[in-house]
Amino acid sequence: MSNEGEFKNINVVGAGLIGTSIALRAAQEGMSVSISDIDETAESLARDLLSSHSFDREPDLVVIATPPNSVVEVLKGEYEQHPKATFIDVSSVKTKVQHEVEFLTGLKTRFIGTHPMAGREIAGAHAAQSDLFVGRAWFVSPGETVIRQEVEKVKGFIAKMGASVYEMDSLLHDQLMAHISHLPQLISTALAASLETQSSGLELAGQGLRDMTRLAGSNGGLWSQILLANREQLIPAIDEFVSNLNRLSQDLKQEDVVDLENVFQIGNQNRQRIGGKHGAVPRNYSYLLIVIKDEPGALSDLFLECSKLNANIEDLSIEHSPGQLTGLITLAFSPEDAERVKSHLTDKDWVVHQR
Amino acid sequence: MSNEGEFKNINVVGAGLIGTSIALRAAQEGMSVSISDIDETAESLARDLLSSHSFDREPDLVVIATPPNSVVEVLKGEYEQHPKATFIDVSSVKTKVQHEVEFLTGLKTRFIGTHPMAGREIAGAHAAQSDLFVGRAWFVSPGETVIRQEVEKVKGFIAKMGASVYEMDSLLHDQLMAHISHLPQLISTALAASLETQSSGLELAGQGLRDMTRLAGSNGGLWSQILLANREQLIPAIDEFVSNLNRLSQDLKQEDVVDLENVFQIGNQNRQRIGGKHGAVPRNYSYLLIVIKDEPGALSDLFLECSKLNANIEDLSIEHSPGQLTGLITLAFSPEDAERVKSHLTDKDWVVHQR
Repeated sequence: MSNEGEFKNINVVGAGLIGTSIALRAAQEGMSVSISDIDETAESLARDLLSSHSFDREPDLVVIATPPNSVVEVLKGEYEQHPKATFIDVSSVKTKVQHEVEFLTGLKTRFIGTHPMAGREIAGAHAAQSDLFVGRAWFVSPGETVIRQEVEKVKGFIAKMGASVYEMDSLLHDQLMAHISHLPQLISTALAASLETQSSGLELAGQGLRDMTRLAGSNGGLWSQILLANREQLIPAIDEFVSNLNRLSQDLKQEDVVDLENVFQIGNQNRQRIGGKHGAVPRNYSYLLIVIKDEPGALSDLFLECSKLNANIEDLSIEHSPGQLTGLITLAFSPEDAERVKSHLTDKDWVVHQR
Repeated sequence: MSNEGEFKNINVVGAGLIGTSIALRAAQEGMSVSISDIDETAESLARDLLSSHSFDREPDLVVIATPPNSVVEVLKGEYEQHPKATFIDVSSVKTKVQHEVEFLTGLKTRFIGTHPMAGREIAGAHAAQSDLFVGRAWFVSPGETVIRQEVEKVKGFIAKMGASVYEMDSLLHDQLMAHISHLPQLISTALAASLETQSSGLELAGQGLRDMTRLAGSNGGLWSQILLANREQLIPAIDEFVSNLNRLSQDLKQEDVVDLENVFQIGNQNRQRIGGKHGAVPRNYSYLLIVIKDEPGALSDLFLECSKLNANIEDLSIEHSPGQLTGLITLAFSPEDAERVKSHLTDKDWVVHQR
């Protein structure tokens, strides 16, 4: 069965957001799907969401979607039951599991570490969606011991999830995650913790602090597992960050304006390297900044005016500032639509600025 | 003239975003306004924006809206020319200027440091708006040497700008700014600088890194002046942050899960103290998470559907993730409207989740 190039029978272990979303998508794609969880409520909810749950077929793909710390134990148990299946996990650190699997005869030829970069702000089976992975990056980090044919089949499976496959060595993957995901999380948490001594006035903070501490709202239980699993890559990244911070701190102590501005420039440049929307080349948008009065329906009125003109809103962001009663919304349009919207809204007494 | 309780003739020095916006608002409020800048282009643009520019009247209020480093020099020059006027600055660090002014006989009785918390993402006279300060916080940090009556008049002037006055001791102000504005800026820059060694893959970053490095896009010239001016408050704040980061780093090295989770919890709590929209008590909103397909008009279609139901959108945020073709938008409604919108959109085949 597993030689036909495509997986047909999927077992998902772990009925959280990721596992359940995979199960939903696989079912939608015509695969026969089974899902389980040690939490009976989660399992039952996930099975309710799946219209066709398949209990008794031998899986050709087992997806381990449990918290990071339990991945290897669950893998071992599943391999004993289904020695002919292919196995993937979906956890966000790849080397640690890979190293442990390499000691497991048999399993090491059939396991491929993967990592879908999908949102985690909502959790649990109830938040699952079959299109969770559409257009998202999904890393594949096969070890050297795995049968290559399995890797191609896993890539095909990921493509069916709607995601874009990025094959990357597990060490490079973990280094990348240390920089673009785990370090930002740690810094946000440390910054929020540092507000402890500021007994009042925090509510006056602008968007900057709000953005910088958003990640600090994350779940400490899950994140402790992730950060510990990647500590070998994360600790050097922390050191590098601290050395940049120390440099800035020294510049302040020595009033070294030239070097202060140098570090800002390096920051400016790397900021640009991250890129804009969709991680793609920024499109040719025109941006309108519009003052929104804090009145019921003000936002809806704005969008209604845009709809009347058949102007396509391509992107948007909203800014709230300390103690303010109004907000500033930025809407992106094609240059032509921007002109039309600006003129129309201005006529209707909206305050509009073009950027 | 300055005894009548209200300022009538305003000189603004510095025709940037803040200075020009103050001038526009003052003119709108019926004051006679003059604006100047060492940059002739900026001055000329600002004067064009002001319909009634008053050149030859003796000012009763002089607003210094120049970069931080030049505030005191400009103050001295203006005081020589207009010894009977009241003087305010609008820079974001208050103790440094205050200390220098306290050595200036005469001026020290007539100068009041102020700080409007207004957006700086767009700069220059061309971006000025008379309602820039509406609903925003505007700090007033009078020194002990100033005539108290002047303070009340300045507060009246700020109220006319549409802002909310917060009187705060200059040292407390600078400590607060060190924590809620200057430290986040410095950390964002240091984080972005630390991405230097990550030669590729940055475009795969999710919203977290994008949020954490947004401030790193700031202007290094202006920010170096601000950070240096507040270094006495900023350096202890950096130390406190580094000590939290070191604690997290030690926890990772020692695999101390309990303490890791403790720091996350402190971060969670302080994150909540910052509060939600408008820095006020969060309102009773229901949040809908809606999948937006990356097709022209998809956002407009969504808002049109909401308009059809007369459902008031109270707040919104949008999330883009790495390489994705779709976005996830969060809309806030009253609980009743949320139910109606969810049901309506679901019928129309939108993917909607309630949080």
